[in-house]
Amino acid sequence: MTTAKKLGERKIIQMIREVLSLPSMLIPFGDDVSGVEIGNNRVAILKIDMLVGKTDVPPTMSFWQAGRKAVVMNVSDFAAKGVRPIALLVALGVPPNFLSGDIEQLAKGLNAGAREYATDIVGGDTGEPSDLVISCSLFGLTKRNLPMLRRGARPGDIVAVTGFFGKTATGLKLLLANLSAPPRARKLFLHSVFEPSARLDEGLALSRTGAVSASIDSSDGLAWSLYEVGRASGAGFMIDNLPVAPEVLNFARHNGIDPVELALYGGEEYELVLTIKQRSWKKALQAVKKVGGSLIRIGRVTERPDMILQWEGKTIPIEPRGWEHFKSGK
Amino acid sequence: MTTAKKLGERKIIQMIREVLSLPSMLIPFGDDVSGVEIGNNRVAILKIDMLVGKTDVPPTMSFWQAGRKAVVMNVSDFAAKGVRPIALLVALGVPPNFLSGDIEQLAKGLNAGAREYATDIVGGDTGEPSDLVISCSLFGLTKRNLPMLRRGARPGDIVAVTGFFGKTATGLKLLLANLSAPPRARKLFLHSVFEPSARLDEGLALSRTGAVSASIDSSDGLAWSLYEVGRASGAGFMIDNLPVAPEVLNFARHNGIDPVELALYGGEEYELVLTIKQRSWKKALQAVKKVGGSLIRIGRVTERPDMILQWEGKTIPIEPRGWEHFKSGK
Repeated sequence: MTTAKKLGERKIIQMIREVLSLPSMLIPFGDDVSGVEIGNNRVAILKIDMLVGKTDVPPTMSFWQAGRKAVVMNVSDFAAKGVRPIALLVALGVPPNFLSGDIEQLAKGLNAGAREYATDIVGGDTGEPSDLVISCSLFGLTKRNLPMLRRGARPGDIVAVTGFFGKTATGLKLLLANLSAPPRARKLFLHSVFEPSARLDEGLALSRTGAVSASIDSSDGLAWSLYEVGRASGAGFMIDNLPVAPEVLNFARHNGIDPVELALYGGEEYELVLTIKQRSWKKALQAVKKVGGSLIRIGRVTERPDMILQWEGKTIPIEPRGWEHFKSGK
Repeated sequence: MTTAKKLGERKIIQMIREVLSLPSMLIPFGDDVSGVEIGNNRVAILKIDMLVGKTDVPPTMSFWQAGRKAVVMNVSDFAAKGVRPIALLVALGVPPNFLSGDIEQLAKGLNAGAREYATDIVGGDTGEPSDLVISCSLFGLTKRNLPMLRRGARPGDIVAVTGFFGKTATGLKLLLANLSAPPRARKLFLHSVFEPSARLDEGLALSRTGAVSASIDSSDGLAWSLYEVGRASGAGFMIDNLPVAPEVLNFARHNGIDPVELALYGGEEYELVLTIKQRSWKKALQAVKKVGGSLIRIGRVTERPDMILQWEGKTIPIEPRGWEHFKSGK
């Protein structure tokens, strides 16, 4: 028999899914959140996540930042579906040797994350595993026809993202591979690792436009997110405007690293990856601008299920890989 | 600074609670579940729990049983509030060296637990901590005035439980202290450890009677549950009919163990501990019998906040202790 490490997160989830007696669901199992119809055209939106210190908390990240990140990870999935989180529950697994000050910082970070997205922590539990484990569960409400799903991308739709990519992957390289960057860029990269943000305002604004045909967050990397939407929608992508952050491009060139690698396969970023109906592009753009965000057109949905990148005059196939627990582990 | 181990679970929860910006809540923070009002007199009931292999899975318990137990723990809290669980989310933390067969058994146990209480697993997440960690989050709906809270016990109310105590504590003694028992009793004790049940039917039936003034489950032990209800209600208890299982009494006498210790302070049992208005006692009794359960009168609520046990002609103070993570750890 194979070990969890060799199986990888996706195989494990597939195995579990095969065992479960799944009910018929409004939101397919495996999308970013789950939905339960509660009558009157309303749907309860539910989500559980697990942050593990060993794999999700990079070196030198503070406890406050780890607590906050656990919330942001969860809110990001609600953002991608366009659902406002209402209440948060936290199961906090604290190793026996943690100090009271560490626990206080974790709690303050959790609270700060919740306040940032106007959500309340309403309950929780604690446990004592050997690693730090933070499991957050979010609750929200929406109308039956509102959540933006992974399926729904149609050939001709515009592919767009809410920000530039590669900063977190670069920040992790600075921390783990001991590379260096100019102070200002270094600060930007590390901020992106230590204090990521969820695009909740953007997601909420976009869901009201009806312009979005599919949506996902990019926590497993841009390439992986595109594959997930592609699989769920039965479509492919032609990416002709890879959204690499300019600072990442500079860093990559200075260090002989492929910027495409950093932008496509890094993961741990919390931008939204969206497909948008062509005729509604302006409406979507305006809605995002109105909440102070940005929407970057990066390509289009194709009939052929291929994933293609056009980059510096070359046509490069996008690979189905990204951040994966059990396999990517440091 | 103090370590988590020395602080103990209750101090840790208190510390966290002081840090959080708590909203005003229908169900007080620290009760068995959380409630979010969603309009039309309806309340969403939410709960998160964390089972940790190292502390919650006794030796020789199978993965199937561990998965099932994670669900039962959670359902038991809904049972105590009289709320039907509708949907379950599971964050499963699997150590890298677990085998595919182990994961399959965990998933089958989780699914079996959900099916047993007519609930669906609708979503989840996985992670890779060093220990097995199962964090379950339950969702349900109820009317604003229906959940049975920990507060509400009034002097004169009858104290009752849904079954006999001490079997799990005895089972754990068999497993951990290498004691023995006659085969039939041994089987009973181990069953209570490995395949506990939540008293969901009893809780649902009781909540409809309006007879219950306060309710809690007994997962931290009978004594602790009484203290929790006492604190929340500002009342005390006189327990004159300690519900020790007859097999536990036998075992204790044979092995020179105090049966009161096993019944009051064992924990990991999932009976309901209830206070019931005197005039509604018959109604409560009938409701529980109708669903095939039992309701055992064990004492009464007193004005004085003391916790007193009458046992074999003696009056013994009940101590505020029970199963507590971080401190009770094996």
